[in-house]
Amino acid sequence: MRNSQVQIPTSREQCLALDAADPLAPFRTQYTLPANGVYLDGNSLGVLPVRTPEIVRRTVEEEWGQDLITSWNKHGWTELPFVLGDRIAPLIGAGPAEVVVCDSVSVNLFKVLTAALRLRSGRRTVLGERDSFPTDLYIAEGVTGLFEGARSVLLPSLDSADDLDAHLDEGVAAVVLSQVDYRTGRLLDMGAITAKVHAAGALMIWDLCHSAGALPIELTTHQVDFAVGCTYKYLNAGPCAPSFLYAAPRHHAAVEQPLTGWFGHAAPFAFESGYRPAEGIGQFLTSFPPLLALAGLRATLEIWEDVDLAQLRAKSLALTGLFIEQCADLEVVTPRQEKLRGSQVAIRHQDGFPVVQALIERGVIGDFRAPDLMRFGFTPLYVSYTEVWDAAQALREVLASGEWQAERFATRGAVT
Amino acid sequence: MRNSQVQIPTSREQCLALDAADPLAPFRTQYTLPANGVYLDGNSLGVLPVRTPEIVRRTVEEEWGQDLITSWNKHGWTELPFVLGDRIAPLIGAGPAEVVVCDSVSVNLFKVLTAALRLRSGRRTVLGERDSFPTDLYIAEGVTGLFEGARSVLLPSLDSADDLDAHLDEGVAAVVLSQVDYRTGRLLDMGAITAKVHAAGALMIWDLCHSAGALPIELTTHQVDFAVGCTYKYLNAGPCAPSFLYAAPRHHAAVEQPLTGWFGHAAPFAFESGYRPAEGIGQFLTSFPPLLALAGLRATLEIWEDVDLAQLRAKSLALTGLFIEQCADLEVVTPRQEKLRGSQVAIRHQDGFPVVQALIERGVIGDFRAPDLMRFGFTPLYVSYTEVWDAAQALREVLASGEWQAERFATRGAVT
Repeated sequence: MRNSQVQIPTSREQCLALDAADPLAPFRTQYTLPANGVYLDGNSLGVLPVRTPEIVRRTVEEEWGQDLITSWNKHGWTELPFVLGDRIAPLIGAGPAEVVVCDSVSVNLFKVLTAALRLRSGRRTVLGERDSFPTDLYIAEGVTGLFEGARSVLLPSLDSADDLDAHLDEGVAAVVLSQVDYRTGRLLDMGAITAKVHAAGALMIWDLCHSAGALPIELTTHQVDFAVGCTYKYLNAGPCAPSFLYAAPRHHAAVEQPLTGWFGHAAPFAFESGYRPAEGIGQFLTSFPPLLALAGLRATLEIWEDVDLAQLRAKSLALTGLFIEQCADLEVVTPRQEKLRGSQVAIRHQDGFPVVQALIERGVIGDFRAPDLMRFGFTPLYVSYTEVWDAAQALREVLASGEWQAERFATRGAVT
Repeated sequence: MRNSQVQIPTSREQCLALDAADPLAPFRTQYTLPANGVYLDGNSLGVLPVRTPEIVRRTVEEEWGQDLITSWNKHGWTELPFVLGDRIAPLIGAGPAEVVVCDSVSVNLFKVLTAALRLRSGRRTVLGERDSFPTDLYIAEGVTGLFEGARSVLLPSLDSADDLDAHLDEGVAAVVLSQVDYRTGRLLDMGAITAKVHAAGALMIWDLCHSAGALPIELTTHQVDFAVGCTYKYLNAGPCAPSFLYAAPRHHAAVEQPLTGWFGHAAPFAFESGYRPAEGIGQFLTSFPPLLALAGLRATLEIWEDVDLAQLRAKSLALTGLFIEQCADLEVVTPRQEKLRGSQVAIRHQDGFPVVQALIERGVIGDFRAPDLMRFGFTPLYVSYTEVWDAAQALREVLASGEWQAERFATRGAVT
């Protein structure tokens, strides 16, 4: 079932040995972790890096508090959306001046999808997956609602690139897909799908929310047109921190995005009355992201400068593989094949909600997605092999003991 | 020239006496002010409230760092856009559930202007002022570019509501105006203009960036349709903090905004594949604002609960009146008439840039807007009468001495 040299431990002793030899283990000290727990929800909200409070404090007290407006130059505020975009670029296989940090994933998807429909003006269909993270579907509805005759078509979940064949007709302007499914953890083949979409004359937009910081991504290699992604899951920039937007340089000259705020202008401080988009990636800026939120991103991206993405991927596959094998008697919906797997594992269980609550009481923090999925995220920079072993044993014990049936676990919360 | 009972001091002794009797003086201790200076740039970036660092720290270290995803419920994150909107509402004359905090001014203007064009589907013209803050004009271009036959028409600066008469024909869908001009500080008559726009069958959208927190605003009284505004100038929420959006309740049922992200959905956590907008103001949410940035807004709005807006306005007019009278021999472009004046004073001077730099060296922080305007913002909660007196004398001395001609003041920076 496995198809790489990733070593999956089969005992707690092996886990301890792997942790001792883990080249990524030193990163763990860079994060603030729950005192007596195993945090397996980094695919929802990444934990706080140790260095972040001080960098936020400095931004608040020194940059804002003392230096005030002079910080725009003195502390390089003006350049931050580009500087931080350039630091994210290597994590997603992009080059300098191809990524910018701004707004939310939803707003950035709105920009690139509208731009895509304009670039393919003879075509009016947007393809997506019915089970994608809903905001992508809703934004596709919002965008197509602005173009006469445009529509958003939702397909069943793709098993492979070939599933697109029947739908890639000459009416398709753009395809929007999540590289990693937020529920199942299924990883799509970015190269094969992008090539197929291009062969049909359409543009490819990838949502990287569940893949950026979870595995190596190769946007340039695969000639992806546009991508968006969040920074608060595997990248640990802080709750709802600003998103990033990638646009292939070959589109920079012809593209036209509709959220034409002043920071996307060629000369924002000339205060001209007519809009002239900036050249390059800057034209995707609208306004300026909140500086306090950018401080969280500045902090965490310092850590990522030292991460080897091949090591990250190898450990991620080992952690998810370990959890899957230890839960093999449960209904694991995450693909066993490594090339089809992101960095999370989902298990279907009709009583998933109280089971997750019972696990949380034992200190194992995962989450639940209606109607019946338990999700566990594995963040290689701060989760150890031994923790994953212990979490799997805890899950088995919770199920075997029936402790999840206690009344206190029955109420379904809105988010957690 | 004056038309109210606002007392304008004519000596430094009178300023000291007014400061001693100022009912708003105690608020000054709530803000972190430059050590040896007078900060007259709160109309660009409001200073740091004393309480903010601790509230941000708690949000970072305790809410994010310790409580992680449980904070969505435990610390009420989920409700923050509404709770904070309701706290802004009394500052702009709106009611509960009519204001929401999210995104930037530009993005929010995009939402309400698109919504307005849909509500007035037989009409395709958007009117604005040529000298408005550029992002409003650029967004109007971006929105009209999405509607067949739509156009944005820019008028010369309005002196009164009557100046609109010639332009309010049956093609006008919406009018977008800044209540206070970002350069000159001119205050428009919200009631007269909104009434005129409604009489012509169009919708009225106000940009409150330079008026929220600077003077009382009466959106409900004047039956305004939509409004947007920033929180980082007179409201001190922190650099580029999230914006607010107001929509009159009479529009909530029929309105349709295009940035249909998942937090605007009727049931965001049901993860439905089709978009169903939330009822009420919630439908204007797109995604969730960054929590670190919201922390700054939470902090500052605590202060505003105790502010009497009539006292605020009286002091604002006295401060601006004082500065204008002390600079009467210069080319003051801000209206002398109180009802036409916001909370800033602009002075035209062909060498405005080096003059402002020389003033900054003396500790008086104003700013410059090309080609020739020196701007001074007067924030009644933390600027004293005596400071304004001293600032005006400093300006007179800088001009009289010619010290601004020194070479070190000649370089023009990008922002400051």
